[in-house]
Amino acid sequence: MKINENYLKLPGSYLFSQIAEKVNAFQEEHREARIIRLGIGDVTLPLAPSIVKALHQAVEEMGQGSTFHGYAPDLGYGFLREAIAREDYEKRGCQIRADEIFISDGAKCDCGNIQELFAEDARIAVCDPVYPVYVDSNVMAGRTGQYDPASGTWSNVIYLPCTRENGFIPALPEETPDLIYLCNPSNPTGTTLTREQLKLWVDYANTHQAVILYDAAYEAYISDPDVPHSIYEVEGARTCAIEFRSFSKNAGFTGVRLGFTVVPDSLTFQGASLHHMWARRHGTKYNGAPYIQQRAGLAVYSEEGKREVAEQVAYYMRNARVIYQGLREAGFEAAGGVNSPYVWLHTKELTSWEFFDRLLACAHVVGTPGSGFGPSGEHYFRLTGFGTYENTVEAVERIKKASGQLLGTE
Amino acid sequence: MKINENYLKLPGSYLFSQIAEKVNAFQEEHREARIIRLGIGDVTLPLAPSIVKALHQAVEEMGQGSTFHGYAPDLGYGFLREAIAREDYEKRGCQIRADEIFISDGAKCDCGNIQELFAEDARIAVCDPVYPVYVDSNVMAGRTGQYDPASGTWSNVIYLPCTRENGFIPALPEETPDLIYLCNPSNPTGTTLTREQLKLWVDYANTHQAVILYDAAYEAYISDPDVPHSIYEVEGARTCAIEFRSFSKNAGFTGVRLGFTVVPDSLTFQGASLHHMWARRHGTKYNGAPYIQQRAGLAVYSEEGKREVAEQVAYYMRNARVIYQGLREAGFEAAGGVNSPYVWLHTKELTSWEFFDRLLACAHVVGTPGSGFGPSGEHYFRLTGFGTYENTVEAVERIKKASGQLLGTE
Repeated sequence: MKINENYLKLPGSYLFSQIAEKVNAFQEEHREARIIRLGIGDVTLPLAPSIVKALHQAVEEMGQGSTFHGYAPDLGYGFLREAIAREDYEKRGCQIRADEIFISDGAKCDCGNIQELFAEDARIAVCDPVYPVYVDSNVMAGRTGQYDPASGTWSNVIYLPCTRENGFIPALPEETPDLIYLCNPSNPTGTTLTREQLKLWVDYANTHQAVILYDAAYEAYISDPDVPHSIYEVEGARTCAIEFRSFSKNAGFTGVRLGFTVVPDSLTFQGASLHHMWARRHGTKYNGAPYIQQRAGLAVYSEEGKREVAEQVAYYMRNARVIYQGLREAGFEAAGGVNSPYVWLHTKELTSWEFFDRLLACAHVVGTPGSGFGPSGEHYFRLTGFGTYENTVEAVERIKKASGQLLGTE
Repeated sequence: MKINENYLKLPGSYLFSQIAEKVNAFQEEHREARIIRLGIGDVTLPLAPSIVKALHQAVEEMGQGSTFHGYAPDLGYGFLREAIAREDYEKRGCQIRADEIFISDGAKCDCGNIQELFAEDARIAVCDPVYPVYVDSNVMAGRTGQYDPASGTWSNVIYLPCTRENGFIPALPEETPDLIYLCNPSNPTGTTLTREQLKLWVDYANTHQAVILYDAAYEAYISDPDVPHSIYEVEGARTCAIEFRSFSKNAGFTGVRLGFTVVPDSLTFQGASLHHMWARRHGTKYNGAPYIQQRAGLAVYSEEGKREVAEQVAYYMRNARVIYQGLREAGFEAAGGVNSPYVWLHTKELTSWEFFDRLLACAHVVGTPGSGFGPSGEHYFRLTGFGTYENTVEAVERIKKASGQLLGTE
């Protein structure tokens, strides 16, 4: 019996599991502490009324013989795929057809699974810092080479540093990757690529026969008209890009589970269609997103639904502004918070984990250490606008009070 | 850009997609035909009242700030894992703890994904015929060697024929596999291994350091007291077996999506724990089953829920008996239908696909060609008890009328 030894190369546990353990241990020791969590990107507002209504209706249908739904179509119900094609793509001038949209139970699964379509020796490029799933799923597949604990890097991964030195804008790589993961707006930095900046990447990918794996989970938070909501707003993307979308952050579906991936049928390599390969994966290893959830997804696109979820996004963006402005007032250097629910602050002399511990100890506030997102995330720290407004205001007040200790000026 | 060429080795499309295409084409040509589908293993009864009630309650909670649930714990909510540990394991005398149970969105995903934990050159053994997901997911991972279209076999797969000659009971393999997929009660043959017969496999696996991947999706249909509901009823299974369970067939969750996998913490190889590896996979590539679904799963274990789902299982088993008895009366040789919703009939001179076409043409009934489940499935055909009672009775009447053509005696 031989196991997949690539799993053993993964250093430590999944970032958020590690944070949860630390927080639980702290709470055990300080039972009176009212901890405020601005770490994980989980939403806090309840589902919007029109979504709750759609869920109830779908549940009712599932309880009646004449309207019961068994196995869903592997790739998703037509009603949802068509609504997405119309609302998310046609209305933004993107040429994406309903049958190029694959419904799933969330962008994390899709981002993690997509690498299966590519050769074992495909070379990946990731922004640094980056959402850990992109790298970890490739580690498990044996694609990343050896880990160097000192630098926190994998020998076979091309890192694209995004730091305050380059305004968090990755430069085109010197070595040619096969797969390029781009998250726009970026998790964790909260920064963005404009349409013009993204065009460079699309052109690069088409020239070098690379595939862009484009994570647009945070598109609903974009306020700047120069930042694209979809990579397909950029000419040429249909021949080089796969796009991941989520209902988690725009409609609060983190606990509902629904997302989708766009694989245009124009994406072909070595005569093989990535579209057909992804369809085959869905058919073989997936059994469709639940009917109830897909009905809830449809409600997100109703007039009422659109209005309600826009209010939720505005609520979280107000939080992000509160954090961003509070941090700046307290003397921190920070990015993000404008087209993104994430604020990315610089921890100065402290390492990311030292800052984590000090923030937890001094302010009873939980955030996410930047180093957990990659080596260039060291000395940064992520806070999110997904808390309640009241908690966010209080957390910022506590941070201001503790700023001397946190900034090392006390 | 190099794709995963293993995908291209897969012959044709996923079995059930292929059937759907054929049926759609037939319906197009014969618009008046009222086709009865006894092919795919999808349920037809609506969700039971106690499950509908639990879903509505959970939806209500999701719509209130004080009871909203965001990201679920990766491995599942404690309330569901504890109910499963108690009801499915403790009550049957199995030593399985709640924290050894991993909640997911269904057994198909888990069965398809589990192979990731093992080395690329791990050798698999499968019953033949078998649920296609086991082999196909290993093809995609490059573990099965080359396909021989003439024999319908893969060069690096150990096939365990299950035919009428051996009473559908697989013999221990001559070559030693690393992974052994067992489905009990079997899909597609509807036959079973008794506790005593399964013990041979557990002992074999422990002796040969192999892992049994045990699919118990149909355990609710077992009526024979000698057939185990879980492999952990067999001594020694904790050191060699992973078990897959589903809510699809016992509670009609095919469109709801909920399942679980048991990975005991005593399963270690080369010093690595499969339990920890599976947990890591969940943490990295999965984001938890929806809260709503997990509440529905809990309702399956309530007193009311247990009674209601037992009635549904009885309803489908009555159908299976109707099919089994009708086929026998019509002169067919058939297996299954006693501890399983599946009836497996012999198509005599006709190939499985010839029988499929003839059954569709003469009786407007859809079933599943046995050859789609592996080479030893040739000349067999699967019918399922998951239709409505009325449709099942009518389908059997139609088959009886067409039996001359179907059996080749006319």
